[in-house]
Amino acid sequence: MKRIAVFPGSFDPITRGHENIVRRGASMFDEVIVAIGVNTTKQSMFSLEVRKKWLVDTFADLPHVRIETFDGLTVEFCKKNEATYLLRGLRNGGDFEYERTIAHMNKALWPELETILVFTDPEYASVHSTVIREIIKNKGDVSQFVPTKVNIYE
Amino acid sequence: MKRIAVFPGSFDPITRGHENIVRRGASMFDEVIVAIGVNTTKQSMFSLEVRKKWLVDTFADLPHVRIETFDGLTVEFCKKNEATYLLRGLRNGGDFEYERTIAHMNKALWPELETILVFTDPEYASVHSTVIREIIKNKGDVSQFVPTKVNIYE
Amino acid sequence: MKRIAVFPGSFDPITRGHENIVRRGASMFDEVIVAIGVNTTKQSMFSLEVRKKWLVDTFADLPHVRIETFDGLTVEFCKKNEATYLLRGLRNGGDFEYERTIAHMNKALWPELETILVFTDPEYASVHSTVIREIIKNKGDVSQFVPTKVNIYE
Amino acid sequence: MKRIAVFPGSFDPITRGHENIVRRGASMFDEVIVAIGVNTTKQSMFSLEVRKKWLVDTFADLPHVRIETFDGLTVEFCKKNEATYLLRGLRNGGDFEYERTIAHMNKALWPELETILVFTDPEYASVHSTVIREIIKNKGDVSQFVPTKVNIYE
Amino acid sequence: MKRIAVFPGSFDPITRGHENIVRRGASMFDEVIVAIGVNTTKQSMFSLEVRKKWLVDTFADLPHVRIETFDGLTVEFCKKNEATYLLRGLRNGGDFEYERTIAHMNKALWPELETILVFTDPEYASVHSTVIREIIKNKGDVSQFVPTKVNIYE
Amino acid sequence: MKRIAVFPGSFDPITRGHENIVRRGASMFDEVIVAIGVNTTKQSMFSLEVRKKWLVDTFADLPHVRIETFDGLTVEFCKKNEATYLLRGLRNGGDFEYERTIAHMNKALWPELETILVFTDPEYASVHSTVIREIIKNKGDVSQFVPTKVNIYE
Repeated sequence: MKRIAVFPGSFDPITRGHENIVRRGASMFDEVIVAIGVNTTKQSMFSLEVRKKWLVDTFADLPHVRIETFDGLTVEFCKKNEATYLLRGLRNGGDFEYERTIAHMNKALWPELETILVFTDPEYASVHSTVIREIIKNKGDVSQFVPTKVNIYE
Repeated sequence: MKRIAVFPGSFDPITRGHENIVRRGASMFDEVIVAIGVNTTKQSMFSLEVRKKWLVDTFADLPHVRIETFDGLTVEFCKKNEATYLLRGLRNGGDFEYERTIAHMNKALWPELETILVFTDPEYASVHSTVIREIIKNKGDVSQFVPTKVNIYE
Repeated sequence: MKRIAVFPGSFDPITRGHENIVRRGASMFDEVIVAIGVNTTKQSMFSLEVRKKWLVDTFADLPHVRIETFDGLTVEFCKKNEATYLLRGLRNGGDFEYERTIAHMNKALWPELETILVFTDPEYASVHSTVIREIIKNKGDVSQFVPTKVNIYE
Repeated sequence: MKRIAVFPGSFDPITRGHENIVRRGASMFDEVIVAIGVNTTKQSMFSLEVRKKWLVDTFADLPHVRIETFDGLTVEFCKKNEATYLLRGLRNGGDFEYERTIAHMNKALWPELETILVFTDPEYASVHSTVIREIIKNKGDVSQFVPTKVNIYE
Repeated sequence: MKRIAVFPGSFDPITRGHENIVRRGASMFDEVIVAIGVNTTKQSMFSLEVRKKWLVDTFADLPHVRIETFDGLTVEFCKKNEATYLLRGLRNGGDFEYERTIAHMNKALWPELETILVFTDPEYASVHSTVIREIIKNKGDVSQFVPTKVNIYE
Repeated sequence: MKRIAVFPGSFDPITRGHENIVRRGASMFDEVIVAIGVNTTKQSMFSLEVRKKWLVDTFADLPHVRIETFDGLTVEFCKKNEATYLLRGLRNGGDFEYERTIAHMNKALWPELETILVFTDPEYASVHSTVIREIIKNKGDVSQFVPTKVNIYE
């Protein structure tokens, strides 16, 4: 049976921390689906098209990494794609509590779903999309925090 | 002197975690007042009437549990009701920091008020109203997370 | 039914933090048993007699606070004393994880036993017996950290 | 070389915790700039003028504490003022994770910038501007949480 | 390539939490090696033979779970067994910090080694070998905390 | 007035994390005293002479960093050396709770003493002397975790 993992997020924008987790996940699973959650109530800084393009470009060298968009519950998206693994990166203790809550509730909704966690490598552990957006708003340079294929000001 | 405890919250909706804490509190105190905080600036998913009905139905078997609504400061509500105990459930380390801040500030405002904490039983420790609302928005089944008297889609 | 709480510890020596919790517990429960755990494998700095005397002196003004010693499991001591409450103080996030583990395992051993937590008042939250012993070993002055009835160097 | 530190915040309103950190910082550095961040998207409770006046009044006795306002990135403000220190207070474990993220990202943006942390003194560690605003909205008395020069209801 | 994971520990004794993690790991990896670390300086409560027998009995139904003992560094044991995954269970925030430290240092020693974490299911999250040993010393009943094949007092 | 900071520890052995903090502290203070605490009850892996030599060699390029040994309370050592700053590195949330306790108790013992914290740079945040000693015991290579001047196996 194929081992398929979903790596969900809003990727607004994708960070080097995200890239780090996906690349490591790509060597663990037969397929990794990077799934951009479409949240109609939360305004994103970058359009869905741009966010998707950055993901596609960043993982162009990995044939078994697929970029998708989804709305609705993450567990439903996983079921539909026969993905029994949810891949998540842990940066710090704050992430921990949040991820555990979500993992336990997802497992309650679909017991087959296993949440797999890896620690973000230390050099990326302080990279947060929220802070990156703040820097962008103030015209700062974020190139060291995002993958090389991401060109914020193009 | 009667020992009266207030268990405040928005209960949007009540969860099995809330039920767990109130039932345990009911055997500790002479009276437990479940107090729905009315926050005029935060939009709730369920109307005050529905939230109150669910609480009334859930605790119908406990005569010394009373359901009330309040606006303003929790400490003022406690004073008015001669309740010197504030009952709170601790799920995880994230709750801890928040609860301590609130408890210390409440005690500064009214030194007689004692905040009493119990650990949410493990099976309910990952149940959060926020996540439940997210599942409801996406038409998922939340029946295992809310008390049996709560019928979300009726 | 009488509400009896046990406040267990090694009290080597009793701190102002311990005193703070017991005094607050004394106004919540009909009886508080301060229970000195006798651990035959861990060497204490002060003899059981001295530790007990300090507790007796410190709570001499509270007739419904009783000082006892016990060995074996805390839950067994609680059962024997018909104490269905275990009183604990929470200082910080490190305490939190430890207390939750112990509370859940105690409840598994005796489901009637309810662990009740209160936050140590801020001015005592950094007072630890371990650090006090370290200061004593180095002949420092610990009088501000222990109850006034405790005379370390007498 | 003059050691200049920036203490940034929104000070909506200034708390005794803020005052505590600035006074201690004032004895460590040759100059402390208390910098009110102007955030055009977040609505403040008090006007910039009022917030600035309260800061000026509170630190009127400290000639080397200067009150400034800024928009844009904190690191840019530091650079422009030749301030190589960012002064921050740590209240609890929740602060810790947030401060570390910000400190690491700031250092990545400007490696000369050193974030210096001090623990808020215990009696102020539970004082949060957010909770103070909540109390003010409900007409409660916050005088014990803010510096004596701050007159909320004047 | 075979995906081999090592689940190291002292298993003194094995708990239901350990069993939970190994069973879930067994459905993720082609082989799981449960590796009992032999620590010559730390005295164990149960002999290596007994601990190994309990593990063998508990996982007798899982042909691709192998029980081994090792001394020396965990990374060396992994290398020798061509195991590029280290499987770990996360119970709480205290585990988190410890596991991250070990994971990062292990990765520094052998960059191929990937630490994979799963959250212990809620009902087992408070089960610790240390507390179990304490209960055993005091002749308490630990049968609900250990796998059914483990007979402590036989 | 000269700003003197003490950086206390057992340095058994010194790590790159320690080096990181001292070098950064050296640019903040007029003098940094690296103080090796002599603990007569805890057995160290390396002799006091070796630990001191490694510190002297590592900071030979920094004339205002002084290496000293001390027994007794840290605050007494600070007083004797007219050092009103205690410099500490924060790696993670576990460090945080411990450091806060010690800082508050030290301040209670000597109110002039200010504890100054900096975050360990991310690449060193998982480096712990305890784990390094474990690797050394098992003949592993720790050269990437200790300063270049430290030759463990010479």
